[in-house]
Amino acid sequence: MEVARKLVEQNGDGITLGMVASAAGVPRARVEAHFADDNEMIDAIVETWFVDHIAAMEEVLAADLPPNRKMYEFFVRRFRIHRDRYRADPATFEVYCELGAAHFERVESYVDLADHYLCELIAQAQADGAFPGLEIDQALSLINQMVFPYTMAEVLTYMDDRLSEEKLAAIVDTMFVGLSAANRGASGIARIAAVQGRSG
Amino acid sequence: MEVARKLVEQNGDGITLGMVASAAGVPRARVEAHFADDNEMIDAIVETWFVDHIAAMEEVLAADLPPNRKMYEFFVRRFRIHRDRYRADPATFEVYCELGAAHFERVESYVDLADHYLCELIAQAQADGAFPGLEIDQALSLINQMVFPYTMAEVLTYMDDRLSEEKLAAIVDTMFVGLSAANRGASGIARIAAVQGRSG
Repeated sequence: MEVARKLVEQNGDGITLGMVASAAGVPRARVEAHFADDNEMIDAIVETWFVDHIAAMEEVLAADLPPNRKMYEFFVRRFRIHRDRYRADPATFEVYCELGAAHFERVESYVDLADHYLCELIAQAQADGAFPGLEIDQALSLINQMVFPYTMAEVLTYMDDRLSEEKLAAIVDTMFVGLSAANRGASGIARIAAVQGRSG
Repeated sequence: MEVARKLVEQNGDGITLGMVASAAGVPRARVEAHFADDNEMIDAIVETWFVDHIAAMEEVLAADLPPNRKMYEFFVRRFRIHRDRYRADPATFEVYCELGAAHFERVESYVDLADHYLCELIAQAQADGAFPGLEIDQALSLINQMVFPYTMAEVLTYMDDRLSEEKLAAIVDTMFVGLSAANRGASGIARIAAVQGRSG
């Protein structure tokens, strides 16, 4: 794993078991004892990237906090993990962003997990009166879109200085006050009942 | 210009006056009669990309509409321009996104112009009671962040199916109801008075 991560950090995307074996100076079979194929190795690298994120989300889910506090913590803790990593080493951070984009199918299960947890938070918030009238999937998509710059890692690479905890808190506050199925007329037409699509 | 755009679409970023001259089969001096240097040529290409956006923004600014309708139209018209272009030719669209990212300094004046117009809309909305307590620059940054997926062209390349007019309208409605300087406690701490940073 050490060697595999070093190689990714030096060469970016496109590493193979063979490259890891030759960089580590061991027979390919040694590497294959750890990873059945290239994809399994990529999965292991992706896992090390997300392990802190998952711990942060699970901590928030288990916390005894009101829904608006939980929602903020749900996003801010992962934002801080990304920001710490980005500021510690911007170049390596960009390489991992590219790896994730190039192997999105290996990242997707983490996105799905985050959506799953967010649905739980939305249900708790709705039990408390927030987001009236919206289906959980509608709220999920709209919330994900409104906090997009705080969850999409690569946004840090070009607007770190404009992202902040204070602004994220203001956005979460705005959702809890204003997000609902009510049509307040921005589009000037009857809003189509189903704001469709999951995630977002 | 024709030749320059063709070259960009075929080769992506990094075109020069010399490349355009040889592709057009004319002496370099002919091309230099139009563009003093490479940057001037990039500027001309960027301008053709944004000319429709500027027209759309100016139309909205001049329109006799309530502030929430104006805000929605301000974003949705440019979103539709991007989406039409993306769907018509995804590969070329991506090339222009990359060109913009690689030459961000040539794009910046358009971002500043959009921010300038958005500040006018915010002032009109605040005269009408929206976004209470926020400085215009604070509202500008927060609004730009909440609609980020609808203004950042390349987001279309990976989530076109999850972006829609209906969702954008719901986000604008949410802002007009909920966005204010009031601290509703999402962060659990006194929110720092200045949600700093312009644009965003």
